[in-house]
Amino acid sequence: MRLILLATTALALSATAASAEEGMWTFDNFPIARANQTLGTSIDQAWLDRVRLSSVRFGGCSAGVVSDAGLVLTNNHCVASCVANLSTQAVNYAATGFTPRTREEELRCPGGTAEILTDITDVTDRVRAAGAGLTGQAFTRARDAEIGRIEQELCAGDDGTTPADRRCQVVSLYRGGQFKLYTYKRYTDVRLAWAPEDRAATFGGDLDNFSFPRFAIDAAFIRLYENGRPVATPTHFVWNDDQPVTGTPVFVSGSPGSTQRLLTQDQLASIRDVVLPMDQLIASELRGRLIRFAAESEANAFMAMDPIVGLENTYKRGLGRMRAMTDQGFMGRRADAEADFRARVAADAAMAEAAADPWDALAEVQPAVRELYVPMALLEGGTGIGTTSPGGGSVLFNYARTLVRAAQERAKPSAERLPEYGDARLGAVENALMAPRPVYPELEQVRMEWWMSKTREWLTVDDPRVRTLLGRESPEALSARLVEGSTLADPAVRRALWDGGLEAIQASDDPLIQWMLSIQDVTRGVRSDWETRVQAPTEQASERLAAARFAAYGDTVYPDATGTLRLTYGLIEGSNVPGQRFDGFTTFDGLWDRATGAPPFDVAPKLLAAREAIDGDTVLNMTVSSDTIGGSSGSPVVNEAGEIVGANFDSTVLTQRNAYGYDRDVNRSVIVTTGAVTTALRDVYGMDRLVAELRAD
Amino acid sequence: MRLILLATTALALSATAASAEEGMWTFDNFPIARANQTLGTSIDQAWLDRVRLSSVRFGGCSAGVVSDAGLVLTNNHCVASCVANLSTQAVNYAATGFTPRTREEELRCPGGTAEILTDITDVTDRVRAAGAGLTGQAFTRARDAEIGRIEQELCAGDDGTTPADRRCQVVSLYRGGQFKLYTYKRYTDVRLAWAPEDRAATFGGDLDNFSFPRFAIDAAFIRLYENGRPVATPTHFVWNDDQPVTGTPVFVSGSPGSTQRLLTQDQLASIRDVVLPMDQLIASELRGRLIRFAAESEANAFMAMDPIVGLENTYKRGLGRMRAMTDQGFMGRRADAEADFRARVAADAAMAEAAADPWDALAEVQPAVRELYVPMALLEGGTGIGTTSPGGGSVLFNYARTLVRAAQERAKPSAERLPEYGDARLGAVENALMAPRPVYPELEQVRMEWWMSKTREWLTVDDPRVRTLLGRESPEALSARLVEGSTLADPAVRRALWDGGLEAIQASDDPLIQWMLSIQDVTRGVRSDWETRVQAPTEQASERLAAARFAAYGDTVYPDATGTLRLTYGLIEGSNVPGQRFDGFTTFDGLWDRATGAPPFDVAPKLLAAREAIDGDTVLNMTVSSDTIGGSSGSPVVNEAGEIVGANFDSTVLTQRNAYGYDRDVNRSVIVTTGAVTTALRDVYGMDRLVAELRAD
Repeated sequence: MRLILLATTALALSATAASAEEGMWTFDNFPIARANQTLGTSIDQAWLDRVRLSSVRFGGCSAGVVSDAGLVLTNNHCVASCVANLSTQAVNYAATGFTPRTREEELRCPGGTAEILTDITDVTDRVRAAGAGLTGQAFTRARDAEIGRIEQELCAGDDGTTPADRRCQVVSLYRGGQFKLYTYKRYTDVRLAWAPEDRAATFGGDLDNFSFPRFAIDAAFIRLYENGRPVATPTHFVWNDDQPVTGTPVFVSGSPGSTQRLLTQDQLASIRDVVLPMDQLIASELRGRLIRFAAESEANAFMAMDPIVGLENTYKRGLGRMRAMTDQGFMGRRADAEADFRARVAADAAMAEAAADPWDALAEVQPAVRELYVPMALLEGGTGIGTTSPGGGSVLFNYARTLVRAAQERAKPSAERLPEYGDARLGAVENALMAPRPVYPELEQVRMEWWMSKTREWLTVDDPRVRTLLGRESPEALSARLVEGSTLADPAVRRALWDGGLEAIQASDDPLIQWMLSIQDVTRGVRSDWETRVQAPTEQASERLAAARFAAYGDTVYPDATGTLRLTYGLIEGSNVPGQRFDGFTTFDGLWDRATGAPPFDVAPKLLAAREAIDGDTVLNMTVSSDTIGGSSGSPVVNEAGEIVGANFDSTVLTQRNAYGYDRDVNRSVIVTTGAVTTALRDVYGMDRLVAELRAD
Repeated sequence: MRLILLATTALALSATAASAEEGMWTFDNFPIARANQTLGTSIDQAWLDRVRLSSVRFGGCSAGVVSDAGLVLTNNHCVASCVANLSTQAVNYAATGFTPRTREEELRCPGGTAEILTDITDVTDRVRAAGAGLTGQAFTRARDAEIGRIEQELCAGDDGTTPADRRCQVVSLYRGGQFKLYTYKRYTDVRLAWAPEDRAATFGGDLDNFSFPRFAIDAAFIRLYENGRPVATPTHFVWNDDQPVTGTPVFVSGSPGSTQRLLTQDQLASIRDVVLPMDQLIASELRGRLIRFAAESEANAFMAMDPIVGLENTYKRGLGRMRAMTDQGFMGRRADAEADFRARVAADAAMAEAAADPWDALAEVQPAVRELYVPMALLEGGTGIGTTSPGGGSVLFNYARTLVRAAQERAKPSAERLPEYGDARLGAVENALMAPRPVYPELEQVRMEWWMSKTREWLTVDDPRVRTLLGRESPEALSARLVEGSTLADPAVRRALWDGGLEAIQASDDPLIQWMLSIQDVTRGVRSDWETRVQAPTEQASERLAAARFAAYGDTVYPDATGTLRLTYGLIEGSNVPGQRFDGFTTFDGLWDRATGAPPFDVAPKLLAAREAIDGDTVLNMTVSSDTIGGSSGSPVVNEAGEIVGANFDSTVLTQRNAYGYDRDVNRSVIVTTGAVTTALRDVYGMDRLVAELRAD
C-alpha cells in the first residue's frame, strides 16, 4: 500500500496542485511569475489590470472591449438569442447576418446585460461568522442573508441604494475556502453591432461542434451604451489581426461557468451515476421531439432553430463528460490525486484534526444527493451539479415563476427572502423579466409537455408531488391549457403583475400564474430538503476540505470555475494524441474544401459569394492549450502585448474532461482569429466602418 | 486483505452458487431435490417432461398449451405485433379486442412461429474440437461451420434435409461451458384466438410498466395449426382459475432472453460505461421523435402505437439496468462474488493452471469492446450485449439486408456462410421474409432517418464508414430516397428477389437493394473486426472461466439465459424492501379505484361496460419470487400439480438488476392470473367457447 502511494505521488501532484498551463485563475491570485516562466513572457500587475478592465461578461458568455467606443467582440453563438429575438420569420438576421450600415442602425438586444469587473474584496470572515454554530437550513439561510447584506451594504451609493450601473456579488471560491465580493460596472443597454450569417458561424453544425479542424466564423460584435450613447472605453484591447504563429504564448480572459475539479471521488460518482444520466437521457428525448417539430413546417423550423442548437451543444458537452467519467486512465489519475491529498493530511496530526475527515462527511451526503437530485432538478433547479431545470426551458414558465416568487418574497424583509430575490439582486430580476422578447406558443407547448411528462416519469405517477403538479390532467392537456390560456407573453401584463405584487398575483386569472401558485409548497419543499440534507452539509465539509487543501498545497491551487472572471494561459498549438490529432490552424481554403453544399456543410451564401475576394491562406480557426470551459465562449485571446488575436468559441470533445481536471495532452480551446473576423467584415459583409474602428489604434 | 475475503465469503457464496429460488435452470439440469426441499413440493422427472412439452416459444416470448386442441396462453403484448399486422386504422383490433366467435374466425399471425422443445443432446466435444488450436476469426468461423453441420446432420429427416416442422439449434450454455443441441417441434401456422382491448392489457401504460401494484389483463390466446387444422395436444397444462393464495409454490417455464450474470467485473464495466449509455441515449431520442410523430395525426398515432410501446418497454428496462449498475450495494455483492471465485481458483494450483487467468484475458479484451461496440451495434448488430441494431427497426431495411445477404451467402457452401444463413437456418429466414405484413413508409422514414443520423453522430462525420453509408447525402435525404423508392413492401417483389438469387439482386433497380449492396464491405468489415478482436478471445476465455466455475462450485451453477427453455421456481408473495413495498395481489376492484378516465389510466370500454358483471374481489395480477427476465413474458406459471395458474408478463423496475444477479429481496415477477383471464373471457368479451375449452379437463 505504501509503495503504491509513493509511486503515484508524482502523478498525483500534477493533478492536485496546478502545473504548466493548468488553472482558471482569479485576477487577484494570478501566478504571474510562474506564467512568465512557463511561457517566456513578462506580464505584470498593470498588464493584468488592463486585461481585466477590457474583459466583459455578457449573458452566459465572455467578451472583450476592442475599440474606444464600447465595441465588444464575442461569439456569434453568444448573440444567437439576441439575433433570434430581433428576428421574425420574414426578417431573419440568422439567415442574412446583421450588418448595420451606421452606428445608429445597431439594435438593442432585449434583456441584454454586460458587465466589467472593477473590484474584488475579501469578505470571508463576515460570511463565516454568519454561519458559525449553525447547521442545516439555518446555516444556509443565515449565510444567504449575510451575503445579501454584504452585497447591499458594500454596493450602496451615496443614497444608500445600489446604483443601476453597479452590481455586487459575493462569490464562493474554492467551494467555501474564500468568499469575495465582486463589484461590476453594469451596462443594461447592449446593442448588436454585427453578426454574420448563422451558417458562417456554425458551419458543420452539431457534427463539427466540439471538434477540430474547424471552419467557423463564430464571432459577433455588440456595443455598450449608456444614456443612449456608446460608452467611451479608452481601456480596451488593441486589435491584432496578423497571421498567428505556432508556439505563441496567449492568455484567455473570460468567465468560465463551472468546473467540478475540487469535488471528492464520492461526489463525482454521484454526478456520474445519477446527474449526467438523467440530464442526458431526458435532453435526448427533447432533442427528438424538437427535431420532429422543426421538420413539420418552415415556421416551426424557424422557432426551433436556436433551441435545437443550444440543446445539442449542452447534450454533446454532457456526452463528453460521460466519456471522461468512464475513462479509466483519466479518472484513475483523479483518484490518485485524492489519495495523495488524503495522505498528506493524514500525515500531519494538526491538519488532520482541523480537517475532520471532510471526505467521509461528503461521502455521507451522497445518498441524499442520489435521492434528491431528480426531484430538485426537475421541480426546483439550481442544483449546481446538473443541467436540468423546471419548466423545460419554457419562457412562460419562467415568467410565471419569477412573478409568483418575487411577489411572495418581496412581502418579506430582504434577509428572509430566497437569496435570488434579495434587494441587491431584485433589479436584475426585474430587468430580465421585463425585456421584450418573442414567445412562440407551439414551442412553449413542446417544452412544457416534455418537462411535465419527464417529471411524471422520473418521480413516478404515484408521487404526491407529481399529483400536485398535474392534478388529474395529463401532461399534454395541462401544458396545452396553461400555454394557451396565459397572457404573460405581453410585457404589459408582466409589468402590471410585478407592480401589483402579491395581491395582483393572487387575483390574477392567468391559469399559469394560478397553477404556479398551487405548486409553490411542493417546489419550495423540495428546495428546503435539498438545502438541509445536501447543500448545508456539503458546504460545511467543503470548507474544511478547502482549508486542508491550502494547508497541504499552499496557494498553488486555483478555485473551481464559478462563472466569474478568470485568466488562463497557454500556447497556440495543435494536438497529437490518439483520437485527437491535428495542426493548430485552419484556413478559408480549408473551408471551401470541406464544403459539400448540403447542410450543415453548406457555406453561407454571402460568404460563398465573397470567395474570390478572400485570401484563402488566412487562418480561420486555431487551437490553444489554455484551460477553458463553457462560459469561456467569447473570451478574448490576448498576446503578451495585451493585443487581442482571437475569441475563444469552443473546445474539443475530449477536452470536456476539463470539468473534472485539466489534461495538458488533450485540452485544446478552439479560437476564431481576429484575422478571420477582419476578413469577414471587410470582404464579406461590407462592414469597413467597423474595421476602421478596430484598427484606429 | 485476508480478513476482508473471509468476512465476505458467506455473502459471496450466495451470489456465485445459486441458492434459494435463484436460477433459470435448463430442463436437463433442474435441481429437483433442492427445489422440492425449498418449496416443500414433490415434483419429479415425469412432471418436468410434461411441463416442458406443454411449454411454447412464440416469437421472443413464452407461452403454454392449455387445451387438447392447440390453444396456447401467452401475453397480449406478445401478440401485439400480430394484432397490429392484422389491423387497419379502420378495423383496429388493438382498440376493440379480437374476439372470434368461432374457431374458423381465428386469423393467422403473419410470420408467426411457435416451437416446443422435444430433445436436448450434448454436442460439446464436437464444437470444441472444431475450434481447437485456432484463434481470431478462424476460431469463430470454424466453430460456426461445425455448429451448422451439427444442426443440419442431427436434424435431418429420412431424405437428408431438415423437415419443415423441425428446428435444431446448438446452444452455448455457461458461455461456452457446454454446447447442447436443442431440437424443436415447429409450428408455422399460428392463429390469433383472442386478444383483449389493448388498454385492458396495458392499463397504466408506460407509467405502470415494470411496477406493482398492477392492473393489466396482459393475456391472449393463440392456436397452433398444422395442415390447416388445430393441432391435437393431449399433453397440456390443466386450467386452474382458483383464487391464488400467498405462499403457494409455483414454477415458471419459459425462455428468458439474456442475462449477463457470468460476466466478469471488467465485462460488466464495459456494458455500464459504453453499451447502456449509447443504447439508452439514442433510444430516448427516437422516443421523442416518435411521440411527436404520433401527435401529428390519427393515422400516425395508429402506426406509431406498437413501436412506441415496444421502445418504451426496452428503454425502461435499460433504465432499470443502469440503476442496478450504479447501485453500490448490489454491485458490491457482485464484486464480492467474483473475489470469492478468484480466491477459490487461486487456492488450487491445478485449477489455476487450467483456468490460465480468464479474468485477465477478458480484461484485455475490453478496450476492443469499448472501441468496437458503437460501430458494431450501429452498422451490424448482433453484439449480444446491447439493444442497438442497424436500420433503426425499419422493416424495409431488414428485408433488404436479408435479401442481399442471403443471396450473397447462398452462393457459397453452407459451412462458409455467415452462420445465420446456413442451410439449417435458411427456412426460418425465408419464412420471416415472406410473411405478409403492413409497411408504413412514414414510420420507416422516421426510423431510417434517426438511425442514419445517430450513426453519423456517434461514428463522426469524417469516419470513412459513415461516408460509405451516406455518400454525399444527408440522413434526411437518403432515408427519404430509399424509403420512397423501394418496392420491398410487396411480398411478390421479395419472392422474386429471393428466388432470383444474387443475379436478381445485382440487377435490381430497387434503390434500397442497391444501397444495401454498396455498404456490405463496410458492415461485414465491422463484423469481422468484432469477431476477431472481441468475440473469439471472449469465447476462449469464457470457456476457461466456465470450466473453472464448474471446478469451484460443481453443478450448483446455472447458465446465463440464452432465449432457450428454462424452469424457475418461487413463491407467490409480495415485497417489503425500501422503494418496493406491496402485497402480492391486486383485484378488479383495485382497477376501478385506480382508473382516472385519462389515458393511460382509462379502463378499456368493453371492460368498463362489464364492471357490474365482474366479481371485484377476483385477483387480477400477482407477484412471485421466481427468477425471470425479458423473454419470460407469457411464461406459464404452474403449481405443484402441473396446473397453470397464470402467465408471467412483467417484473418491477428494481428487478431489472436480474440481468446481473438474482436478489431474493427485490426480485418479483408480475403475473396475470388465470382467474382474471376466465373473467375477461366470460364476463367481458363473450368468449365462453374458450372458457369451455379451457375447463374441459
